[in-house]
Amino acid sequence: MELLDGRKIRNKKIEELKNKVSKLDKKLGLVVIQVGNDEASNVYVKQKEKLALDIGYNFIYKKFSEDISNKKIIEYIKDLNKDDNINGIIVQLPLSKSLDTNLIINMIDPSKDVDGLTYINSGKLIQNSNALIPCTPKGIIDLLKEYNIEIEGKNVVIIGRSILVGKPLFNLFINNNATVTLCHSKSKDITYYTRNADIVVVAVGKKYFLKKDMIKENAIIIDVGINRENNKLYGDVDFDNVKDITSYITPVPGGVGPMTVYELMNNVYIAYKNKNNNML
Amino acid sequence: MELLDGRKIRNKKIEELKNKVSKLDKKLGLVVIQVGNDEASNVYVKQKEKLALDIGYNFIYKKFSEDISNKKIIEYIKDLNKDDNINGIIVQLPLSKSLDTNLIINMIDPSKDVDGLTYINSGKLIQNSNALIPCTPKGIIDLLKEYNIEIEGKNVVIIGRSILVGKPLFNLFINNNATVTLCHSKSKDITYYTRNADIVVVAVGKKYFLKKDMIKENAIIIDVGINRENNKLYGDVDFDNVKDITSYITPVPGGVGPMTVYELMNNVYIAYKNKNNNML
Repeated sequence: MELLDGRKIRNKKIEELKNKVSKLDKKLGLVVIQVGNDEASNVYVKQKEKLALDIGYNFIYKKFSEDISNKKIIEYIKDLNKDDNINGIIVQLPLSKSLDTNLIINMIDPSKDVDGLTYINSGKLIQNSNALIPCTPKGIIDLLKEYNIEIEGKNVVIIGRSILVGKPLFNLFINNNATVTLCHSKSKDITYYTRNADIVVVAVGKKYFLKKDMIKENAIIIDVGINRENNKLYGDVDFDNVKDITSYITPVPGGVGPMTVYELMNNVYIAYKNKNNNML
Repeated sequence: MELLDGRKIRNKKIEELKNKVSKLDKKLGLVVIQVGNDEASNVYVKQKEKLALDIGYNFIYKKFSEDISNKKIIEYIKDLNKDDNINGIIVQLPLSKSLDTNLIINMIDPSKDVDGLTYINSGKLIQNSNALIPCTPKGIIDLLKEYNIEIEGKNVVIIGRSILVGKPLFNLFINNNATVTLCHSKSKDITYYTRNADIVVVAVGKKYFLKKDMIKENAIIIDVGINRENNKLYGDVDFDNVKDITSYITPVPGGVGPMTVYELMNNVYIAYKNKNNNML
């Protein structure tokens, strides 16, 4: 068993990114839009801010109060779309129920949509055409590649079909020539698939969902779960139970999580490069 | 074994559609853009024309010569986007290599994209959000529903990952709560999946690819293949070999094909209704 050490890879990749960013003749800009004062969101945005500043980006943290209208947020986004100093725009989710999340997300210029959540970037991903890709799925693929794990021809099972993780990850694996099964809460026979899988990705939000009787010898296990209990983090995989029969496995914390924030920062750089290339 | 009779269902649904169309106070308009004079394309467009006129649509068949530029086609599409008498726009594929297919397709107003091929409609499909859906996948789901075949919780295998069939069909089955595996030319172990599948969809373009030793008793088999040999059509499924152990199976011809053309006509109507609803 070898650990897929997301923290180590993240640190290495951030150094590479810093190096590239330091050679640019302008500072790139990232904006995070938050509505309300949700405690978890505050923590996540602060993490992004810290890393963005460390890399050398300008970071704008725009907080609206709970009673903001769709229209006001959209006006703000439209201004950012036009602003050449802004390369990436994120709307921190979830938004409050009174707001139209789909409408707001899709007002972001797809070329600045560094979370990869607009319809256009989803559609480009499905068509394998130069999309800005959601950060967690991108981080998983990059982590596998850093460990020289072959994806082509592999049997992959993803458990969980969210728009942030399962669905885009499915498309990334297909684009990398894996055979992919997507399982979810309505699936009747998950073990049939996981027992044959070379790579299993678990993103269900249930502590210790995956046990060793569900997987085959030498499987590669990716744990996207972040389950909090008494101030401790638990994955969706029962790590101690499965680890000895895996060939590679991500820890929680320190696996997928660190890669996700790096990919966001890298998307800001990619967004800048894409725009620049289009202008040539 | 029961036949999934696409021709019968198509005829029934066309009558329903005609009925709805006859109650509108305006004629809907469908445009097909073709470049060059490919014989197969000529035949397909003529089929669409015949059915469109039969339903009571205006049909505009725009043929450009091979040496047309991207720019000229795009100008034409932009005019159609603005034209209130045009509800659906199709670019007949494949285009010649000198043209930029992705660019041209994505110039179509997504609300008139009745083939469902723009990035925005692909992205809406993945996000399960009111897309115009590609016709063959939509036809397959409708055919299953007409026979009251439950999809939720079923194990589905799709063989073939094209943008026209496999990938959008994958998303449709997921949105209908099936567990879905997508196999393709790089898959090593297709039989492991098909042997456990309640529903198998074959879209590989190889005569008689699927044989009975690959499927389980009472499977439902959908054959998307259209393989021509000596002026005869053959499916991707070895029909006579598998039919006795299936519970339902589509014939070729007369299965998926007829549904596809119906769905295109229905998409024109849906496009009109969507636009109308948005204006209220």
